Amino acid sequence: MTRQRPLLLLSNDDGVDAKGLRELIRTLCPLADLMVVAPDGPRSGASGSITSENPLRAVLVEQKPGMALYKCTGTPVDCIKLALHSLVPRTPDLVVGGINHGDNSSVNVHYSGTMGVVIEGCLKRIPSVGFSLCNHAADADFSAALPYVRRITELLLAEGLPAGTCLNVNFPDVERMKGVRVCRQTSGVWAQEFAVMDNPRGGKCYWLTGSFRNDEPEAEDSDRWALANGYVAITPTQIDMTAYALMDKLNRWNWEV
Amino acid sequence: MTRQRPLLLLSNDDGVDAKGLRELIRTLCPLADLMVVAPDGPRSGASGSITSENPLRAVLVEQKPGMALYKCTGTPVDCIKLALHSLVPRTPDLVVGGINHGDNSSVNVHYSGTMGVVIEGCLKRIPSVGFSLCNHAADADFSAALPYVRRITELLLAEGLPAGTCLNVNFPDVERMKGVRVCRQTSGVWAQEFAVMDNPRGGKCYWLTGSFRNDEPEAEDSDRWALANGYVAITPTQIDMTAYALMDKLNRWNWEV
Repeated sequence: MTRQRPLLLLSNDDGVDAKGLRELIRTLCPLADLMVVAPDGPRSGASGSITSENPLRAVLVEQKPGMALYKCTGTPVDCIKLALHSLVPRTPDLVVGGINHGDNSSVNVHYSGTMGVVIEGCLKRIPSVGFSLCNHAADADFSAALPYVRRITELLLAEGLPAGTCLNVNFPDVERMKGVRVCRQTSGVWAQEFAVMDNPRGGKCYWLTGSFRNDEPEAEDSDRWALANGYVAITPTQIDMTAYALMDKLNRWNWEV
Repeated sequence: MTRQRPLLLLSNDDGVDAKGLRELIRTLCPLADLMVVAPDGPRSGASGSITSENPLRAVLVEQKPGMALYKCTGTPVDCIKLALHSLVPRTPDLVVGGINHGDNSSVNVHYSGTMGVVIEGCLKRIPSVGFSLCNHAADADFSAALPYVRRITELLLAEGLPAGTCLNVNFPDVERMKGVRVCRQTSGVWAQEFAVMDNPRGGKCYWLTGSFRNDEPEAEDSDRWALANGYVAITPTQIDMTAYALMDKLNRWNWEV
């Protein structure tokens, strides 16, 4: 009896034509059957956003043995929801986001469409991982990351993840990575976030940009430190956002109206 | 010497014309100066999404002593970023999201534009709170919630919050609330998430809907239990999403490539 190949559900936020997605498909094809459902264009910074005001469409773009690729009019999270509802032949063994063109470490987890994909997979009780390379360029070189993408995927298929947890994996933009470090989310703040310019039709307009200020550049257990020092940063991430440590304090406040 | 009135920065995801925002403004005007920067239309489900591909515009819609109201072309998070960068006269004492038309408890924290506002305020090191009423209707009745909105705001102005934490406050849709409960995020899953319909131009389309399955309806410390039992649910929420409990296990995996 042949054992069924694992099924991976892939999406991203750079859109169906992004190089990072194509490299991910190429790397994971030997390991598993792939269902790819990606946005029909760039959705960078989509976070966990969903589309409720309009219906979505999905079109099969490419199909070959072991791989089907759809493009979808929605957000990255919409892609995962729609795939799980209507497109997958069985429950996937793993949800994979990426490979993102750009860094999703530290506070970027809150803005990232790639991590939107991953958190959605996790919310649906499927082991989930996001891969991101610290290079925004459309033609970024993913080659040093690919052996790690493969190894991490193999480990996740073999080991799974505890319920409510997923992985945020970021790769430094280097030719040779020094290995893997299991990290925590770095504390930091985005500053100088807008370029202010004249609107040719009158008034001002504001274009998002910014520089990241790392609060703890020397913290060797942080994901930014790992990246700055040439390591693959693996940040285990959880969907329970409750600040348990704050509950006692709040219970002592006088909430009466 | 007169002490300066506190400054609150308000936004929402239902847009500048939503009743919930108007009620929030009316309730908080007596407590503080208000800077309101809200999306120019509905942005439900915007999560922490940001706009990087296009410039934003913001227009002053209304101004009176102690209150300025702008509408902005961006997402809820864009509104907060833009306000803090270019519109506020000083650092706000509190960021307030809402009052949302609809429930943002449990896993909805990951999709909510209201909580996008709040998490952004928290990422910017400002005490932040989101208010949501469990009623989606445009003409929902917020009156039972308003005394709590006022009291919670007063408490936050007096006490602040620890760095990296914020509050997700949800109100049951009842005439008289039984009081406040400090809760944790309920574990649950959205299911049956799409209505599939024929696209009049050919093929199928998929409209997001769904039903929520609560894993733990009897858990008296969960936010859904509080809401189901007529209490205001206050879920302390944190921006550090690291799954610390998973780090040891991951450190024992063989990551070598």
